[in-house]
Amino acid sequence: MYLLLTLLSTVCLAQPADSVPAPSNVLNAPYPRIYPDLRVTFRVNAPQASKVQIAPSGNANGLGRGPFDMVKDDKGVWTVTTPPARPGFHYYTLLVDGYPANDPSSETYFGWAKQTSGLEVPDKTIDFYDIKDVPHGDVRTHWYKSKVTAAWRRAFVYTPPEYDVNPRKRFPVLYLQHGSGESERGWTMQGRANFILDNLIASGIAVPMILVMDNGYASKPGDPPSSRGNAAFPEVVVHDLLPGIEAKYRAIPDRDHRAIAGLSMGAGQAMQTGFANLDRFAYIGAFSGVMRNFDLNATYNGIFSDPAALNKKVRLFWMGFGDLEGDLFTAGKSVHSQLDRAKVRHVWFETGGSHEWQVWRKSLYDFAPRLFKH
Amino acid sequence: MYLLLTLLSTVCLAQPADSVPAPSNVLNAPYPRIYPDLRVTFRVNAPQASKVQIAPSGNANGLGRGPFDMVKDDKGVWTVTTPPARPGFHYYTLLVDGYPANDPSSETYFGWAKQTSGLEVPDKTIDFYDIKDVPHGDVRTHWYKSKVTAAWRRAFVYTPPEYDVNPRKRFPVLYLQHGSGESERGWTMQGRANFILDNLIASGIAVPMILVMDNGYASKPGDPPSSRGNAAFPEVVVHDLLPGIEAKYRAIPDRDHRAIAGLSMGAGQAMQTGFANLDRFAYIGAFSGVMRNFDLNATYNGIFSDPAALNKKVRLFWMGFGDLEGDLFTAGKSVHSQLDRAKVRHVWFETGGSHEWQVWRKSLYDFAPRLFKH
Repeated sequence: MYLLLTLLSTVCLAQPADSVPAPSNVLNAPYPRIYPDLRVTFRVNAPQASKVQIAPSGNANGLGRGPFDMVKDDKGVWTVTTPPARPGFHYYTLLVDGYPANDPSSETYFGWAKQTSGLEVPDKTIDFYDIKDVPHGDVRTHWYKSKVTAAWRRAFVYTPPEYDVNPRKRFPVLYLQHGSGESERGWTMQGRANFILDNLIASGIAVPMILVMDNGYASKPGDPPSSRGNAAFPEVVVHDLLPGIEAKYRAIPDRDHRAIAGLSMGAGQAMQTGFANLDRFAYIGAFSGVMRNFDLNATYNGIFSDPAALNKKVRLFWMGFGDLEGDLFTAGKSVHSQLDRAKVRHVWFETGGSHEWQVWRKSLYDFAPRLFKH
Repeated sequence: MYLLLTLLSTVCLAQPADSVPAPSNVLNAPYPRIYPDLRVTFRVNAPQASKVQIAPSGNANGLGRGPFDMVKDDKGVWTVTTPPARPGFHYYTLLVDGYPANDPSSETYFGWAKQTSGLEVPDKTIDFYDIKDVPHGDVRTHWYKSKVTAAWRRAFVYTPPEYDVNPRKRFPVLYLQHGSGESERGWTMQGRANFILDNLIASGIAVPMILVMDNGYASKPGDPPSSRGNAAFPEVVVHDLLPGIEAKYRAIPDRDHRAIAGLSMGAGQAMQTGFANLDRFAYIGAFSGVMRNFDLNATYNGIFSDPAALNKKVRLFWMGFGDLEGDLFTAGKSVHSQLDRAKVRHVWFETGGSHEWQVWRKSLYDFAPRLFKH
């Protein structure tokens, strides 16, 4: 009986044969479904609504411009098939009579300062962020009470596969930050940083390392109330996070074995924290950083005005962007030219993509192998 | 200027002075707010909607019966203050013109087979699940490829604080399962199992142990398609999960150092898996289990029909319920009486509360200290 019902429901729902459920669907939900050409069919049950749309979040979202109007059937089920998407991870919202709701069929991810639906569109041409049959490191929660913010905070810590096997070995550490409106969960949930590192380490391309992914929001007690305060973050890193990590995990506690990087807002925080603390960090990475007001003689306390001194201290300054990042990309490229002219040693990276996680996955894949090999 | 704007916005929003943001709010969102008497004010921006309600999920939800109609102001902001809530964790939904949406101000938790808003209402009378200034264990992700399901699966693993400090010591393991429509994230996100164990271990009440929290859904390749298939779970535990955990973590690999427990659907899975594998597990816990069709001579292959044999093998069979669980509670109490009459040794636990996480937090707090002390 159960089998019969299941078969009937499968037939009646008539899922298109050449499409497959998105990897970001919850509990085997049949929709959204992705076609071989990367068109996506969304399906939503909303019998009382008079208009339902799929709205990709942000500009240059890989799902397309949108919002895409859905069409209602006689049972109140709404459907739309969107044009071929770019591979990668895309935030999106359901607009139900104009109200921004989540798609109950998709996993939610912290982005846009709230839990937001996300769609993972597989890329047939690359597999460096897929889970593979290689040894896997653990992603751990690290809770700590911050003296700077007087509050409990949570960071995620990736320990490489070798960490538990070899209980005397110490490892270098990459501090890796999320973007605005996101959280400490971003780099593993959206970014798959753990699988990227598993694969890089298994193939010998990157040195085994610890990743520390903290929350970038931090305000001091008495700071004006704000939902997005992050001014205290560099102090948290120096006074709370770094000492706590090195007390608890087997890190190599010197500047040559510490890197700091981040994406978008996190790129700014990595540069701000890193360049102000070159006694602590030798490697700095800025993924899709905001560099519009860059001034060679003034930015980061004028640290770029003495290239010889900087080149001596910084083992790697890495900046990267996606070619669809518009103003951000243009500003970054201009900084790259200025640094070249001033002979500030750095790595410039550009790849296809917009201000989305696919660019940051590729950034990490290029950045991590350059670390800790001096 | 920024300061001025922030101050103005704070004054204009006029948050009630004696209420505080719920601990489950995202990024310092000011609402929902909880009053000292545990009334809760919700606030939602939905200018285009003509009706917005707060709908507590399930029966006997601690937020009240609902749905609670919200009232719209002239800016399209909707507000309602609900009656005093029971302390604990409560799933809820926003009904926007009848469409079930999440509250963007609250964290989402996997429940009801999708990401669902949740509200944490603090309990002034108990603090055993709060984060405290004690050593904290890590909660780790454990990815494994299941031979039974032919798919990658994720479990969360709590290692006690001592685990990393003392790299030769081995620990007993409690396998702990979530309920229907939930996931492997439930016991840490909703249940705070890690903080409960941190506190129990720090005070010496429980033995340091490893917790393994797997996903309870598991189907074999070729099984009829179903979004809620879980029939293969016991096989996954025996053939994939348990050997994988014991290969990777420093577990004590014998039955006297293995326990299995779960809540609701997970209670059934713990009893099914545990009683069928008494060569592997000596401790079994059923939190709010479904026991309506219990038959002393037939259930779990008639294992209760030979109390002497069972009492010899099972070091602990624990069953517990909240007094507001209705039929579940009644059925459980009847099983308790039947086991008493048959002289099947077991622990019966009852506490205040409904079929919600507060009962399961209290269940774990009672259950865990009874483990691994023989």
